[in-house]
Amino acid sequence: MTDNISHDDLIDLTAAILEKGYSYGPEEARVTAVLLVEADARGIPSHGVSRLNFYRKNLREGHTRPGNEPETVWETPVSLVVDGKAGVGPYVAEKTVKRLVEKAEDKGFCAAAVRNSNHYGIAGYWAEEIAKEDMLGMAFTNTYIAGVPTFGCLRILGTNPIAAAIPEAGGRIFSLDMATTTVTHGKVELHDRRGKEMPKGWVVDENGSEVTDATAFEKTFYQTNFGGHLYLGGAGEESGGHKGFGLALLVELLCSGLSLGASSLATYPAGGEGGITHFFSAMRLDLFGDPEKLKGHVGKILASVRESKKARGRERIWIHGEKEREAREKSLAEGVFVDEATRKTLLDLCGEFGVPPVKGLRG
Amino acid sequence: MTDNISHDDLIDLTAAILEKGYSYGPEEARVTAVLLVEADARGIPSHGVSRLNFYRKNLREGHTRPGNEPETVWETPVSLVVDGKAGVGPYVAEKTVKRLVEKAEDKGFCAAAVRNSNHYGIAGYWAEEIAKEDMLGMAFTNTYIAGVPTFGCLRILGTNPIAAAIPEAGGRIFSLDMATTTVTHGKVELHDRRGKEMPKGWVVDENGSEVTDATAFEKTFYQTNFGGHLYLGGAGEESGGHKGFGLALLVELLCSGLSLGASSLATYPAGGEGGITHFFSAMRLDLFGDPEKLKGHVGKILASVRESKKARGRERIWIHGEKEREAREKSLAEGVFVDEATRKTLLDLCGEFGVPPVKGLRG
Repeated sequence: MTDNISHDDLIDLTAAILEKGYSYGPEEARVTAVLLVEADARGIPSHGVSRLNFYRKNLREGHTRPGNEPETVWETPVSLVVDGKAGVGPYVAEKTVKRLVEKAEDKGFCAAAVRNSNHYGIAGYWAEEIAKEDMLGMAFTNTYIAGVPTFGCLRILGTNPIAAAIPEAGGRIFSLDMATTTVTHGKVELHDRRGKEMPKGWVVDENGSEVTDATAFEKTFYQTNFGGHLYLGGAGEESGGHKGFGLALLVELLCSGLSLGASSLATYPAGGEGGITHFFSAMRLDLFGDPEKLKGHVGKILASVRESKKARGRERIWIHGEKEREAREKSLAEGVFVDEATRKTLLDLCGEFGVPPVKGLRG
Repeated sequence: MTDNISHDDLIDLTAAILEKGYSYGPEEARVTAVLLVEADARGIPSHGVSRLNFYRKNLREGHTRPGNEPETVWETPVSLVVDGKAGVGPYVAEKTVKRLVEKAEDKGFCAAAVRNSNHYGIAGYWAEEIAKEDMLGMAFTNTYIAGVPTFGCLRILGTNPIAAAIPEAGGRIFSLDMATTTVTHGKVELHDRRGKEMPKGWVVDENGSEVTDATAFEKTFYQTNFGGHLYLGGAGEESGGHKGFGLALLVELLCSGLSLGASSLATYPAGGEGGITHFFSAMRLDLFGDPEKLKGHVGKILASVRESKKARGRERIWIHGEKEREAREKSLAEGVFVDEATRKTLLDLCGEFGVPPVKGLRG
């Protein structure tokens, strides 16, 4: 039986590794640790502290440059364009969102396009940070190439997530945070490890043909840029794959298009800056009336859906953000679950950089 | 061999029917005719002049009240809330979008939530009207109930489309216009008529179980509010159905939530006003830099996707809006295709209301 790790301890440990081992500044380390542990606490380990490996690779290859301060390169009363200067992604995002919220508080609305940043953690966190201020928050980002357009076979767009957060009554937040690909790559890896066949609609091979053998797919996946994830709706148009592809393209145009930044295909060039682009928006709820009334109305709509009749054999209709909120509450009370492989990563990093392990890390 | 009908003739005819037969005012009739014929011209007959039947039903049942002027009930420098007063949908949308664009021209951004409106035609038209002004245009609407939440079985949300339009170089517009359901109901009807089995992922029965027999499904579909369309990604979570459901819910909260209007389930009450809600936004491109540079960059990203390698057996990757733009150009040059059933509808209406038929209508 492995012990969970206290939420705050895990943040402190992660921040210490980033500061001592990755030469992140204290603030860069803190916000990155908060983002990574937040993902684990919510039950999204694919974006959790296991990403320390990916962040290290980005550091080593010159994609991420700690210490670089983001710079505002264009500004109007209701907008910002930020050059992230290849800085630490969550740090660039935090600075941008803080300024975005200030400007939206003033004028009612603000949008920000960010170029030359890095991976910023879970998109939903940023949308929710905005929603906590009684605003509608949206956050998008492009990513390393992952997906193939409808009728194409080159991976040319990222997982390009959409996150939208809307405050509702009782301090809760409707929080949609979705990759526009059908699934994340972690699910393909899991099917490979378990020797399980994938459902159709997840991936295509280098010719653009649907495949379901995860092990065969994984063998060739990293060798070329051909073959990859399908977008929501799957292959072709029959079940709407062109719609999911359209959403991914919309995210790409908002992030890369409006920031004049790199498109997904141009991110992470050999030896070059990461080039990841983001887009955020904040819209004050009182643009549309009394916020309390609006939040009450939003809450009523959500309640009617939540309480509507369940499919046979099902007990619950989940509103977006509920699973993550409940997992987070459990993690705060009982500690954060960290799997064996990730514990080993953390212990290795502690050893390498002389960071004392925290309680529960050795299991 | 049936003749196509000239684009302008078809608009004039449709407007004449609406004015003489439906007691629409001249402006209400004109904009409604433009919207309906636009859909036919783009190759989207489900939203074309065949909708005259649906619009008539809405009139007869008191859902649509021609002559009622929309009223702005809340306003800030960057927002509008409009009460449509159950007026003609495309007329309410046109008035709102016009004001929205004026306000965005002034302040850089504007959003509008509209309650108590009616069906406004294809959402993409409104997003593109905004994009023509060098702005990012978005348009959403809830609709008559159509879809079932993940793990539910009650139809409680509409087809809830998302439309986003972004100007690119050369006067073209990236235009995504997608129902958040996997398919529209027209596709189910077509499978019923042809006795063809549906793919999985389109609909569930009254217990929330997936069904593929279109004829059996259609028999019970209109008898209760149980069973209906799935959202993009299909049933359950394995292929992302919860994401499509999340997008539909987001649209519902933007439209109904922010306007304090009816949710999809509460639209079209017996004998009452239609209650349809919309949401629009307009964001000036120069919030992010020189519009020509931005449009050039957007164009380059789209070109890289368009020109990327095709899947085996495929010749083209379609960027969103291209199919519709090409169909429209053909319709303007060669006339609009109108199927037999719709011609009969038009001829019947001409006879009933004393409107002279146009060239090509009799085929």
